[in-house]
Amino acid sequence: MNFADRVEAAVRARQSQIVLGLDPDPLRLLPQALDAAGEGSPAERAAEAVTAHCRLLIAAAKEACVAVKLQLACFERLGAPGWNAMSRVAAAARDAGLLVIADGKRGDVPHTAEAYAQGLLGETPTPWGNVPGLGADAVTANPLLGQDSLEPIVSAARAAGSGVFVLVRTSNPGAAALQDDGAGEPLHVKLARLVHGLGITGKGECGLSDIGAVVAATRADMLASFRKLMPAAIFLLPGVGAQGGRAEDLGPAFGPGRGAALVAASRAIIEPALDAGAAAAAGQTAERLRDTVWKLSA
Amino acid sequence: MNFADRVEAAVRARQSQIVLGLDPDPLRLLPQALDAAGEGSPAERAAEAVTAHCRLLIAAAKEACVAVKLQLACFERLGAPGWNAMSRVAAAARDAGLLVIADGKRGDVPHTAEAYAQGLLGETPTPWGNVPGLGADAVTANPLLGQDSLEPIVSAARAAGSGVFVLVRTSNPGAAALQDDGAGEPLHVKLARLVHGLGITGKGECGLSDIGAVVAATRADMLASFRKLMPAAIFLLPGVGAQGGRAEDLGPAFGPGRGAALVAASRAIIEPALDAGAAAAAGQTAERLRDTVWKLSA
Repeated sequence: MNFADRVEAAVRARQSQIVLGLDPDPLRLLPQALDAAGEGSPAERAAEAVTAHCRLLIAAAKEACVAVKLQLACFERLGAPGWNAMSRVAAAARDAGLLVIADGKRGDVPHTAEAYAQGLLGETPTPWGNVPGLGADAVTANPLLGQDSLEPIVSAARAAGSGVFVLVRTSNPGAAALQDDGAGEPLHVKLARLVHGLGITGKGECGLSDIGAVVAATRADMLASFRKLMPAAIFLLPGVGAQGGRAEDLGPAFGPGRGAALVAASRAIIEPALDAGAAAAAGQTAERLRDTVWKLSA
Repeated sequence: MNFADRVEAAVRARQSQIVLGLDPDPLRLLPQALDAAGEGSPAERAAEAVTAHCRLLIAAAKEACVAVKLQLACFERLGAPGWNAMSRVAAAARDAGLLVIADGKRGDVPHTAEAYAQGLLGETPTPWGNVPGLGADAVTANPLLGQDSLEPIVSAARAAGSGVFVLVRTSNPGAAALQDDGAGEPLHVKLARLVHGLGITGKGECGLSDIGAVVAATRADMLASFRKLMPAAIFLLPGVGAQGGRAEDLGPAFGPGRGAALVAASRAIIEPALDAGAAAAAGQTAERLRDTVWKLSA
């Protein structure tokens, strides 16, 4: 099944476009998660606690969300135990009926991009049998190396019914100097054209494509022009909350329909739970965000 | 000690600028490595064999090389066992007196870039003690997100006496469309200016900087202009051999001195060993490459 159709169906079933961003910091975990640390090395204990923390947040927020976004850096920094934690959190999200977006922003020459695709979207053949990858429903990808660097990831995603969100305009302040620059045509316009081109052959029945774009929620003023450049792309919108983006401003992203954009929030959902010392608060924040976005996507 | 001074000293001690690229494919391993697979899951067996393969190559080629470059994708795709294999290969390289370059081309918003820096260059604080990172001597970084996304990686590297190689012009055919494009000033020129700017405060006694640049060995015609734009940057030059770059053409990269560029070769060194079924052939190929580059860097 085409990724865009899967997103469209999931958004309608859950009446939500909210993506729970999971970027666990071992120093900022829910109190109940700390109890799960058990015995072992610091990495092993932190990985157990991180897994428990993410599971608690998934359980609390799942009804209000359509997907989780795993920030690979936050698991990787715990080494092998962190990589195991990431697999277990992905499984917990799938069990909760949520799509899994692996946010690693990988990008490399084609030979290497294929290895990243095997690890996140496919499997790795070995003489001892195939090694299953993370099984992500979608990945984020960095397009700096150009179209040939994205193609192995696009192929692997498409073969699995998964999707790719390509960076077009990121949400950090420093993005402007490179991404918005260019005499004549800014870099973000070239990237948007690249996304549109890669997506043409990946459209689902809903009319949207399996190749999406990461577009900053902090620059809602750009959404209408991005929508014109990429009429079939699903937008993944980070930057609501901690980074200053406002959910109320994201309407133009939803022109093609309810499933045309996903709103990722990490700290905006999780900080209230940390402040309250209880995961339930994350569910309430996610629910309010869900409600705001659902109404403006009508 | 400043990273550039460490590179300069290592290059002089070894009379080599060659970087052994390790991007192990479980289907293309040395015969002796297959015997090391032992028991366990496909991922565990493949990770053991990959570790043995890399150790054999390091042992065979170490005298001709100054560093190894670990292609993170190739370890990641084996999951947690692959991450362990990467740590063990890094340790083997260090024991052989080689610098370790973690080639992950990471790039993300500052908050996340800090997590990548902890995992590769620093350590991650947890309530159970600090989790040590990979301890890389240098990392590659993707600058698409702009200067603020690089700064946490630069800070962490500098604090550890390590370095950062920022992508400026990559070696894949598709790089041209984005990196060489731009009315007035191509993107690669902007990236070169960014690298130069970040490196100004990181110069060692040798006059080179701890912020280097990845520049394609396949585009030797661009090296002289890159050298003008980045007079203090150490160039990391991939693309010799399999991708079509010729070591003989890399002279302009070495204008500032012997330590001003490192030549990365993966398949060019490893394929002869696979064809021969013996790691020793990798040592001979690396030695020839070392000799060619050392002469033209005079």
